[in-house]
Amino acid sequence: MTVYDIVKSRLKEIPHNEKLLSLKYESLDYDNSENQLFLEEERRMSHMGFRCLEIRRWVICGLIGFLTGLIACLIDIAVEELAGYKYSAVKQNIEKFTEFGGLSISLILWAALNSAFVMVGAIAVAFFEPIAAGSGIPQIKCYLNGVKIPCVVRLKTLAIKVFGVICSVAGGLAVGKEGPMIHSGAVVAAGVSQGRSTSLKKDFKIFEYFRRDTEKRDFVSAGAAAGVSAAFGAPVGGVLFSLEEGASFWNQMLTWRIFFASMISTFTLNFFLSIYHGKPGELSSPGLINFGRFDSDHKRQLLKRLKKSMSFLHFMLQLSLSLSLSLSLSLWYIHRPCLQVMEAMLVAAVTATVAFAMIYFSNDCQPLGQDSTEEYPLQLFCADGEYNSMATAFFNTPERSVRSLFHNPPGSYNPLTLGVFTLVYFVLAVWTYGLTVSAGVFIPSLLIGAAWGRLFGILLSTITSSQSVSIWADPGKYALIGAAAQLGGIVRMTLSLTVIMVEATGNVTYGFPIMLVLMTAKIVGDYFIEGLYDIHIKLQSVPFLHWDAPPTSHWLTAREVMSSPVTCFNRVERVGRIVDVLSNTSTNHNGFPVVAHTTENEEPGKICGLILRSQLIVLLKHKVFVERASSRLSQRRLQLKDFRDAYPRFPPIQSIHVSQDERECMMDLNEFMNPTPYTVPQETSLPRVFKLFRALGLRHLVVVDDENRVVGLVTRKDLARYHLGKDGLEELQLAQT
Amino acid sequence: MTVYDIVKSRLKEIPHNEKLLSLKYESLDYDNSENQLFLEEERRMSHMGFRCLEIRRWVICGLIGFLTGLIACLIDIAVEELAGYKYSAVKQNIEKFTEFGGLSISLILWAALNSAFVMVGAIAVAFFEPIAAGSGIPQIKCYLNGVKIPCVVRLKTLAIKVFGVICSVAGGLAVGKEGPMIHSGAVVAAGVSQGRSTSLKKDFKIFEYFRRDTEKRDFVSAGAAAGVSAAFGAPVGGVLFSLEEGASFWNQMLTWRIFFASMISTFTLNFFLSIYHGKPGELSSPGLINFGRFDSDHKRQLLKRLKKSMSFLHFMLQLSLSLSLSLSLSLWYIHRPCLQVMEAMLVAAVTATVAFAMIYFSNDCQPLGQDSTEEYPLQLFCADGEYNSMATAFFNTPERSVRSLFHNPPGSYNPLTLGVFTLVYFVLAVWTYGLTVSAGVFIPSLLIGAAWGRLFGILLSTITSSQSVSIWADPGKYALIGAAAQLGGIVRMTLSLTVIMVEATGNVTYGFPIMLVLMTAKIVGDYFIEGLYDIHIKLQSVPFLHWDAPPTSHWLTAREVMSSPVTCFNRVERVGRIVDVLSNTSTNHNGFPVVAHTTENEEPGKICGLILRSQLIVLLKHKVFVERASSRLSQRRLQLKDFRDAYPRFPPIQSIHVSQDERECMMDLNEFMNPTPYTVPQETSLPRVFKLFRALGLRHLVVVDDENRVVGLVTRKDLARYHLGKDGLEELQLAQT
Repeated sequence: MTVYDIVKSRLKEIPHNEKLLSLKYESLDYDNSENQLFLEEERRMSHMGFRCLEIRRWVICGLIGFLTGLIACLIDIAVEELAGYKYSAVKQNIEKFTEFGGLSISLILWAALNSAFVMVGAIAVAFFEPIAAGSGIPQIKCYLNGVKIPCVVRLKTLAIKVFGVICSVAGGLAVGKEGPMIHSGAVVAAGVSQGRSTSLKKDFKIFEYFRRDTEKRDFVSAGAAAGVSAAFGAPVGGVLFSLEEGASFWNQMLTWRIFFASMISTFTLNFFLSIYHGKPGELSSPGLINFGRFDSDHKRQLLKRLKKSMSFLHFMLQLSLSLSLSLSLSLWYIHRPCLQVMEAMLVAAVTATVAFAMIYFSNDCQPLGQDSTEEYPLQLFCADGEYNSMATAFFNTPERSVRSLFHNPPGSYNPLTLGVFTLVYFVLAVWTYGLTVSAGVFIPSLLIGAAWGRLFGILLSTITSSQSVSIWADPGKYALIGAAAQLGGIVRMTLSLTVIMVEATGNVTYGFPIMLVLMTAKIVGDYFIEGLYDIHIKLQSVPFLHWDAPPTSHWLTAREVMSSPVTCFNRVERVGRIVDVLSNTSTNHNGFPVVAHTTENEEPGKICGLILRSQLIVLLKHKVFVERASSRLSQRRLQLKDFRDAYPRFPPIQSIHVSQDERECMMDLNEFMNPTPYTVPQETSLPRVFKLFRALGLRHLVVVDDENRVVGLVTRKDLARYHLGKDGLEELQLAQT
Repeated sequence: MTVYDIVKSRLKEIPHNEKLLSLKYESLDYDNSENQLFLEEERRMSHMGFRCLEIRRWVICGLIGFLTGLIACLIDIAVEELAGYKYSAVKQNIEKFTEFGGLSISLILWAALNSAFVMVGAIAVAFFEPIAAGSGIPQIKCYLNGVKIPCVVRLKTLAIKVFGVICSVAGGLAVGKEGPMIHSGAVVAAGVSQGRSTSLKKDFKIFEYFRRDTEKRDFVSAGAAAGVSAAFGAPVGGVLFSLEEGASFWNQMLTWRIFFASMISTFTLNFFLSIYHGKPGELSSPGLINFGRFDSDHKRQLLKRLKKSMSFLHFMLQLSLSLSLSLSLSLWYIHRPCLQVMEAMLVAAVTATVAFAMIYFSNDCQPLGQDSTEEYPLQLFCADGEYNSMATAFFNTPERSVRSLFHNPPGSYNPLTLGVFTLVYFVLAVWTYGLTVSAGVFIPSLLIGAAWGRLFGILLSTITSSQSVSIWADPGKYALIGAAAQLGGIVRMTLSLTVIMVEATGNVTYGFPIMLVLMTAKIVGDYFIEGLYDIHIKLQSVPFLHWDAPPTSHWLTAREVMSSPVTCFNRVERVGRIVDVLSNTSTNHNGFPVVAHTTENEEPGKICGLILRSQLIVLLKHKVFVERASSRLSQRRLQLKDFRDAYPRFPPIQSIHVSQDERECMMDLNEFMNPTPYTVPQETSLPRVFKLFRALGLRHLVVVDDENRVVGLVTRKDLARYHLGKDGLEELQLAQT
């Protein structure tokens, strides 16, 4: 366990403190504010109206799927074209110089091309939208969990993300284009469902009903599912991914719509890619990555494969463990200044150099078959009709390399080549992960896993060759199992990953061994450290709510957990006080209980409702004051539409001018507050509070005493603060970072 | 739409009123009663203690999977043996008499054998456990939804069910053995997780922690998933089935455990069936039904199949619609007296007769191939080396017939034969559905769908034969799509059914057309009438809670919905009053708010807790009275264990003797009541109440006024009462039936 210890000690040096919980993140509200305006609107709507809404939801989901598929298609075609151009240029150059011995020029060309691509991508990400770095999956996980990460679902993020991922994949980094698809799908969903783009200042005046957190979150989960579906050609896997991340707000109709979006997405991608590949109507490209078809040798293989996978587990998990640890280490880079671009270019150049060196020094020549999947076979110093086998691994997009490892016939790879490749690629992947480029971790994990899986298979067949060669025959299957184990050990998804892998291989019979491997990878991995995404979330101090409260937290009650005292408003409140409270930057509360009549002494008032900062801002902006009520008869009455128009970027309080006269006016909150907020008594245990909060996706939960008087307020950070450490329950510190 | 009209008019004559909601069903409580005893126990438990609990949960899930797999295995082997015996006896007889012309003797033999099997099964079901009739899926749906159907998860039900399903399948009825597996799995889960059998009076003193509704329901959903998994060899499909039916109580760890149970279940079945089939270690029988392997003709087929399925839809849905209507009609029989056995025998005899007649009058002879899947090919009047094609459909278990329809090469079936078979089998299936035998509807649906799907495929290839034969070549694929459509139109499952079908065919490429077909089947079907299981549930007037409140129900508030006045208890209550209230059969309440001090005048008291009938019964049984508190020091204190021992069959109040002296004693409820029940204010809208109730799986929800005084109680029936009819919101009547 030396690697583990070293990494553990290094982790402590990382400037991000694991024991902090940031206060800068706001929560999404999955609970509708059922105020009078809302109820009036709902009551006005007929049965047909609701049916139309439902149809509109389906249309939006269709659009989400379609656009996500298109984006996936765009990324794929762009990467293919750019990488194709790059590899053929380099290949020509190498072929030209192999004779003359001037291969260093080829190396420089390769490195320069890589660096150029990566530089463009890194500049876009580092200078224009840093949130677009990485795969975006942790951010989407947070969003589905109910945490608002700034800028995460904006159009600009999407543009930079797509551009960045094209550049970094074409630049030959050890990254994949699948992870970012999930983020892209989510952005598409957030944009389409709102019927407007705030960035482009364009409002299509459609889908206005869906302009609130509740509806938006439903659509974002559909978008994430569509992204998974497009990336892996796995619609069911996509649905399960969204489900695993956000099951608290699940129902059958929603599942259905999400499924529909996933289907449309994979179909769109398939349709357009087939046309691009010149085989319209064939629909042979269901996802960005395609593992190719595994023929099933139905009989006598399943149990065998099972045994294999079992014998594997130990070795496999060690590796996946150390990888996830090392990857987490690389997070250290993330917040460094703009050396980032330089670093990305360096990594690109190093990747090219290392690859070149390995190809150059490798003597492993393989005969060039008729049905070879190689698109750019490099002859180099091999005899005619043979190609350099190391080059198939490096001189190729990682997706193709994975496919070669799965499907090339036994004997295509020399064990030494594979071993060296695994090690080198592992180091490169870890280094690359910390870069400020948009890129996913799925494909490098699969590639590393496939490489050592295949290596293991080759070794096993060498050992057992004396007995019966046929049984341990196909190292491609070991590669598949290894890839699943490696990926599972890193991302720790379970049900969804099983289904994704099965859908990507197109063969159900592999389901059982894959399940077993993923399950074991998760159990063993969890024993040592959390999954990569969870580490990511933790290091960023996001108040992420897990499924349940820590089991040993029955000691705590709402009284200990809640924030208090609570800033409350009266049903009819003075404008000056509201402005003062909202302007108080030291507290920055977002929800305020409305109470019956706060007496000036400290005794709290009876709860009558809950009003949000965003609502108050809109009220102040429209100057809805009691004193103007008489003139308001001529003025138009404030409608739900006014709130929806301001959603989701409500102006800050500083931008609203309130004159001294107006400060003395009164504001009647009765019509706008949510009159029936969820409340709990003070003695409620933490797990019970947690369950209510999580199951309903709340943002504020009011704690009341026997007399229904407000005594405290529970928000996300109050609950996320408690977690299970090594020595029982631990409490994280709150920080303003 | 004539069929539709006729059936609609007939539906009105059915004695069960759709507009009633029965009061006889009780609710399950997914909300823990967090009283002092519970909290003390939880607080006493260490971190290790919780981990042990978790491990125990995994062990239980493993056991559930193993036992469910074993039961599936038992059913399969028994059916195979009995049916094998029957068919060979009849076949010998037919072969013997074909020459002599005494075929009527064969007919009588066949009919008698069928009737005998069915009689035994029907007697068991009708006289010993009527709840074991049918597939049990509606009952399990209700259980997962939170409704306690009496006797549904008892050991006796399981025994009768297994026995009954063996008899009815072996008896040649138009039924399947797959549906009942879901029920069987659920019973196994309920039994194993409790560590005892109340029927057998055997308590293993293990798993006592899990003796409450919350935990039991989790395990039952694992059992249902394991059942699906064993029936179809579809572990992911099983998880999704449980999910679709009960997603309100979902979390990741639970999903995991359910997945584990499903895996173990399909593996166990596979393992033992492989041994039974004499090929140990091959693991080639993942489920009870096995659609056989569909080879994928990867290229140029997908879009084609898609087009096919589209052109299909209209015809397909008409049929599935009328089937589900007619099936629902047959429910009429269910509550008739014990002519049931006679009727079942009659149906069995008629089935044999009809089959015989059709085989007899069919002239469709097919050559007997080498690789034929027929186990009992009947030569009858065909030439040597040929067999009667009608006999392959009837003279076989329905599973085999389905497989033949999917896989037999083009030309194996005459269109006329298929058409007649579809019609006859349809009528038989409808008639059979109403019988009092345990049997599933999956296989007959699949068979009917496969038959007309294949018929359609044959017709289509005849029509288009002039153009290009190869494109519309394989009628087996039409059979698959037809089967999916038919089944989807009847049961209206979506995501789960797609995955089940895909897992059963073992080929992911069929996923997309199957999805499309199921989606369309559901949309079109829902336009006319609900799915079969929902009709079943509605006709039995079960208070089933759907996913959401009806959309137009914002008019209603908790005030209108709640039951009031509420019977409340004081914190320290007189025993006499408690006994009187519990003995009042006219109300039969199950939950009682505990209030601060009810004054004698009508003003309600402040809520301080909620106590359940079951808790009061245990308290009365153990005579936990204040007056005995002094002597209780010597007595042992009441523990959570006492409540668990009584779970789930608490004795009725009549069985508890309370003397006149004791009636004057006082009982202190403080320690035993749930001190923090969920409450809502009176003005809360129905959808909001519904969401809270459904998301947390509540049984009682207290409605309070501004002062926290109890004004009403919302239970399941209050919410299930409102549903969306043709003309907007309708209210069902409550009835004592």
